[in-house]
Formats: sequence, C-alpha cells, structure tokens
Amino acid sequence: MNTGSNSIQKLINSLCKLPGIGEKSATRLAFHIINQDTEDALKLSSSIVDVKKNVRLCPICNNFTTRADSCAICSDHKRISGPICIVESPHDLTVIENSLLFKGTYHVLHGVIAPLNGIGPEQIKIKELLSRINNEKASELIFALSSTVEAEATIMYISKLVSGLDIKITKLARGIPVGANIEYIDRLTLSKAFENRQGI
Amino acid sequence: MNTGSNSIQKLINSLCKLPGIGEKSATRLAFHIINQDTEDALKLSSSIVDVKKNVRLCPICNNFTTRADSCAICSDHKRISGPICIVESPHDLTVIENSLLFKGTYHVLHGVIAPLNGIGPEQIKIKELLSRINNEKASELIFALSSTVEAEATIMYISKLVSGLDIKITKLARGIPVGANIEYIDRLTLSKAFENRQGI
Repeated sequence: MNTGSNSIQKLINSLCKLPGIGEKSATRLAFHIINQDTEDALKLSSSIVDVKKNVRLCPICNNFTTRADSCAICSDHKRISGPICIVESPHDLTVIENSLLFKGTYHVLHGVIAPLNGIGPEQIKIKELLSRINNEKASELIFALSSTVEAEATIMYISKLVSGLDIKITKLARGIPVGANIEYIDRLTLSKAFENRQGI
Repeated sequence: MNTGSNSIQKLINSLCKLPGIGEKSATRLAFHIINQDTEDALKLSSSIVDVKKNVRLCPICNNFTTRADSCAICSDHKRISGPICIVESPHDLTVIENSLLFKGTYHVLHGVIAPLNGIGPEQIKIKELLSRINNEKASELIFALSSTVEAEATIMYISKLVSGLDIKITKLARGIPVGANIEYIDRLTLSKAFENRQGI
C-alpha cells in the first residue's frame, strides 16, 4: 500500500517480513507505531537491537540465552540431571518450561530433519546431543516434538543412533486432547488414541 | 510467558503493546526476530526510530508526512481544488488514495467525536478544517467516515457548523457492498439500501 511517505513505507516493508503479518496488518501496525507513545516505540526499537546483539545459544542445550556461560536452566543445580527433554525450538522449550511439568534439562534441536526443505541431520543439533549424552550420563531422552511426519522421522533417526547405549527413549503421548469432543477428532488421532489406550 | 531471558522478555512486552498482538503472538514474533537475518531485524528497529523522529502532521490536511512543508498531496498542483474528502485517520486516507478514486484534497480529523471516550470536538481537527474551508474556498465536503454512531454524530456536528456557508456536504453512500449476498446483509444496512434505492 502506497502511503506517500518513504519512512512509513520502509517500516511497513520491515513489518511485512514478520510471520503472519501481511501488508494490511503491517500498515495498521505502522500507523499504530506512529501514533504510539514515543517512549514505547523506542523501547520496541531498542529491544530488537538488544536481542540481536546479546542473545546467543547456550553451549550445552542450545536454548537462547543472554548469559556468557550456559543458560539459566543448564546452570541451575536444582534441576534433575538424567532426563533430557528434546524440543524443536526455544519457543517450544518456553511453553513446556512455563507448564512447570518438567524438572530435568532440555536440548533444543533447532528444527527437525526435513529432506524436502534441505534440512538433514547435520543442519540440526544432533551431534551436540550425542556428545551431551556421553558427558552427562543421560538416563532418558524425552522427545517433546510436534506430531508431524518430519518430527517422527527425526525421533526414529536419533533413537537408532543411541540404540546401543543404556538410555530410555520416550516421546510425549499422542491421543485426544483434554476437553476435546470425540466428534471433532481426526481419524489419525483417534487411531493413536485406540492404539495407546490406557487401563483404568 | 517467562522465557528466562530479560532481553527476550522486554521485546515480548513491547510487541504486546501493538494492536491485535497478544502474548502468544508476541512470543512467536520475538523468537522469529531472534532467528531473523540481523540486517532485516536492524532495519525494522531503525525504521521505528525513523518514523518517530521524522513523521509529523501536514500543517494543511493533518496527514502524516516527512516533508518539512505541506504533504505530497497538498503540495501537488495537479490535485483538484474544491472538494475536500474528510477522513478519520491517515490509514483511511491511504486506503482511499490507493483506490485512485478521488483527485481532490483530504482533511484528516484524527478521530471522531466520542463523548463516552472523552473525545469532544476540540480533541479532533475540526477547528483546522473550518479555517481551511475559508482559506481554500472549498466547494464540497465529502465525509468518508466509518458507518458508526460516533462518525454519524461527527458528520452532523460539522455539517451544522458550516450550514451557513455556500458549500455542498455529502457522505459516502451506505448500502450493500459489491459482491455481497442479500442473505448475509444485516437489517440496518438493508434499511439504508432501501431508503437510498437508486433509479435504473
């Protein structure tokens, strides 16, 4: 959309590059930023510079961190050592961490194996996971990956690599989400739910 | 959502202040920005600073502009002088301008009268409109405002103020949108469409 101003246009173009934001939303956001409290807008601007400058990967789990050494979770001696929860992204890690359900440590793969998109095992953090398993004497790998074909293939690939080691390998249960109505559940989920039916 | 990093948290908080972006979207955007090409992210950051620094209101029509004098539209001698299209926001102006339907000049009110939200006639650019009408010998005021109670009241208010002057006052037609199906049209729109039915 031509706003007749180069500055506004540049801001719209930059906002358009964010996920889920098309030209219309970007235009709306740009006009909001122009009208916004200057302090708030400059805070947003400096936060972007700040994360690009200071956020790096934790050398142990590959989560995002601003600490010079390992991230807050890896450095926390109260975490249970043994089980490692394997996630696809730092965002997924954050979701699990906020649920307070897991007290072990994490490993962020930064993707899953997807040959069609040119992502092989070398492009994600599998090598780093293997050396961790040896160093930390991990007792269990819990795969908390999405329920997609690529994620399942990644689980199979890593499971095979560690099959010789004395380590338990699990993945999050697939089944009917809590609160869901049977009539809206797709056939594949239903099939998994039958397959993994639980004793009462 | 606690990401365990102060920098990321600050970025999420700033993104949350944008319209239509809740905590979940903000988290997703923040993680995207961290993963994004550094050049793109810094461009976004500097565009924000740029608009906050350079965008001001045109002294004639109150549209956003980065020019030192009047905006590109007001300075354009090819625009028809006479009709002034009155809009609520620079965003609305952009939408109309991009439709290429109007060749006159604009006047941005920056809001409509909404006493419940504490917005009276003094809070929007009505005074500026009145002095323009005198200076420019405007021939017609075309209200291109949303079809809301507040906008209709604003149209009534301004119409009364200029009722003594020799100036045509119109507003955009209300009716059935092109391509719309009668069965989905609400009663009020239908009533307006009957009221303003057109000869064939």
